Amino acid sequence: MRFTSETSVDGVREQLFTLDEIPGEIPGVLWTPDGAVGTRPLILMGHGGGQHKKAPDVRERARRFVTECQFAVVAVDIPAHGDRPKVEEYDRLAAENQARIEAGAEPAPLIAGFQALVARQTVPEWRAVLDAVQQIPHVGAGPVGYWGVSLGCGLGVPFVAAEPRVRAAVLGLGGALASAEAAARITVPVEFLVQWDDERVPRAEGLALFDALGSAEKTLHANPGKHGDLPAYELDSTLRFFARHLG
Amino acid sequence: MRFTSETSVDGVREQLFTLDEIPGEIPGVLWTPDGAVGTRPLILMGHGGGQHKKAPDVRERARRFVTECQFAVVAVDIPAHGDRPKVEEYDRLAAENQARIEAGAEPAPLIAGFQALVARQTVPEWRAVLDAVQQIPHVGAGPVGYWGVSLGCGLGVPFVAAEPRVRAAVLGLGGALASAEAAARITVPVEFLVQWDDERVPRAEGLALFDALGSAEKTLHANPGKHGDLPAYELDSTLRFFARHLG
Repeated sequence: MRFTSETSVDGVREQLFTLDEIPGEIPGVLWTPDGAVGTRPLILMGHGGGQHKKAPDVRERARRFVTECQFAVVAVDIPAHGDRPKVEEYDRLAAENQARIEAGAEPAPLIAGFQALVARQTVPEWRAVLDAVQQIPHVGAGPVGYWGVSLGCGLGVPFVAAEPRVRAAVLGLGGALASAEAAARITVPVEFLVQWDDERVPRAEGLALFDALGSAEKTLHANPGKHGDLPAYELDSTLRFFARHLG
Repeated sequence: MRFTSETSVDGVREQLFTLDEIPGEIPGVLWTPDGAVGTRPLILMGHGGGQHKKAPDVRERARRFVTECQFAVVAVDIPAHGDRPKVEEYDRLAAENQARIEAGAEPAPLIAGFQALVARQTVPEWRAVLDAVQQIPHVGAGPVGYWGVSLGCGLGVPFVAAEPRVRAAVLGLGGALASAEAAARITVPVEFLVQWDDERVPRAEGLALFDALGSAEKTLHANPGKHGDLPAYELDSTLRFFARHLG
């Protein structure tokens, strides 16, 4: 793991890094409180499709976790996103899917298949990210939370199911087609977000994914609006959810 | 309005009263902060079926609204509950419904019809309660919230739809059969509670009532468990919801 740059704004230290412990370099960013010393809870955030590790909404969420909860937050580029190279197989599959959708195919199963393929790569990558980041003295091996919606949910469900260091997760804007089987293996508390008028994830698919979660404590928050319209008060709720389970 | 007794425990003043402004005396209870002076937000709480104005869960919720938000809280006995006399028409209807259910009828439409009948009485009663309580100097004419689940939702939906003083409502554990038409006339922010494994309200009925609400801001919170198993953290969320909209 190599740190490549560092800045500090309004009490939040932002360190860019490259993880080279596993094949294919992974660019990432770590946010921590300025002057932080010692172990603290760590949130891994999975970004959305077409986004990247430092997208404005990712960074805003990270700032709040850091300043209001004193947590550490890490995000890395998903393959073929941000500073990572294109993946020929993904490009080919995306083009094929696009052609099928234009020919009248249902998008949801195609998206689900695509996310399952990418998750086979991101699950081991994200585990390696935790291995590396938890060795940094001002992060340490504290409890881990996962936050990811949309693509970050499709990739997050198999990750949370596979990774015992994750103690609580915020997921949502995803459907059961992608990951119901992995969801059933999740046992940690989950806050699950549904947009009631989601134009990409059919409402029944989102409710079915919540239903599939194996967790004894899981809570569904649904709000009116489209896929991208999560209300601001849900971030307040997310902060309290993680503070309750990781703090 | 006559006050009949008064106690004070741990900073909360509890005043029992009888409202005799409208036909049929209505016994009620008002909770306010000890030593409160001046206008404050007021929460009207509708209790559940078979419960009463001072049921333990009603009182616990009231104490938290008073001590954490400095609100006033009022609850009255629903007809044929608590200290109110039996109502022959309700008894007869309840017995008829019970016989129909034992003969194989679906309970939900029968319960809905019963609640609609009782609501014709409680809507004007509760409006009279607001009229009277808001004239008390340490309550005043501040913003009003409504809290009610189960029977308190079936009666609350037509009340909130009819009463412009109500600025925000927590509802839930009720289905669309009872009150979809009134729900569509509600425009204030609503936090709506669903128990995912509710044995009394079919899940689809609860989701349909949330869907029917006319409010631009409405948020659905669903949790695993049966009708009576609302998790404790939902009360924390309720406090923040009312603080945001009435505070």
